[in-house]
Amino acid sequence: MATEATNGAAAAAQSVMFTGLKPQVFVEASKANDAVAFYKAAFGAEEVNRVSHPKRKSDQELPLLLSAEIKLGSLMILVSDLPDDSTAPIKTASTGLVFCLETEDIEAAVEKAVNAGADGEVTEGEGACSGGRVGKVKDPYGMVWLICTPAKKRGDVAA
Amino acid sequence: MATEATNGAAAAAQSVMFTGLKPQVFVEASKANDAVAFYKAAFGAEEVNRVSHPKRKSDQELPLLLSAEIKLGSLMILVSDLPDDSTAPIKTASTGLVFCLETEDIEAAVEKAVNAGADGEVTEGEGACSGGRVGKVKDPYGMVWLICTPAKKRGDVAA
Repeated sequence: MATEATNGAAAAAQSVMFTGLKPQVFVEASKANDAVAFYKAAFGAEEVNRVSHPKRKSDQELPLLLSAEIKLGSLMILVSDLPDDSTAPIKTASTGLVFCLETEDIEAAVEKAVNAGADGEVTEGEGACSGGRVGKVKDPYGMVWLICTPAKKRGDVAA
Repeated sequence: MATEATNGAAAAAQSVMFTGLKPQVFVEASKANDAVAFYKAAFGAEEVNRVSHPKRKSDQELPLLLSAEIKLGSLMILVSDLPDDSTAPIKTASTGLVFCLETEDIEAAVEKAVNAGADGEVTEGEGACSGGRVGKVKDPYGMVWLICTPAKKRGDVAA
């Protein structure tokens, strides 16, 4: 609910530009690796990036795939193990999928969505769609949207 | 489970080309119209196409939005009212989202997915992602993939 949007962001929100949109599929941990293999075999997906989870709670745990980025046709899809902690954008694998929206102005984007009727907040996160600050928006129809800065420009751009 | 794939499709399946991929969001009927309005207001989506359901069961029913196609960044998303009959690719709005894959060879694509471990079938369907024959594939991780012929080329191409 808290947007942390700065004053004056309302005007800026009218001109929020999204530069990318990637569906992110969450599967029950630790099946993301198998899922990526399946998407390669079934649909000819190409894996273009892979990030393992930096925080494992014990050596007994299987490695968690934070995200694998696969290319399918002209679209990029992220495949991730569902985290078992509060940082998860969704709570069950049955929900399965969120959209990752990329923009240079996370606060303005979240404020615009909240003004339109969504629940939204800006938090610190991690993951392919959320290295650093990330907006989490749940729309009135149940879909979850993560709003983050484009990965390639992270750190290079003054927000 | 029935793929209806022709003999010899196994070899062709190795070279299935997907020309497009669109996420399709299903919402509880008849909220799709509201959802499109929300995505315009919240994310600046542009509506580029709209198809109402051709079969209404009674005049008392609200019109069903078969699909609205909205452009968000560089991606197209389909927003649809969840049908209440057996043609629905998913059964509850809580599942919420499927991927629509476009290819010229539906049978080969479904066979390849089935060989990789998915449940799949080819049926007659209707909708933005399924005007005519449509492949329905449920992967081992619960995601549903609809496989159809690109809308613009439907009827122009001999499969």
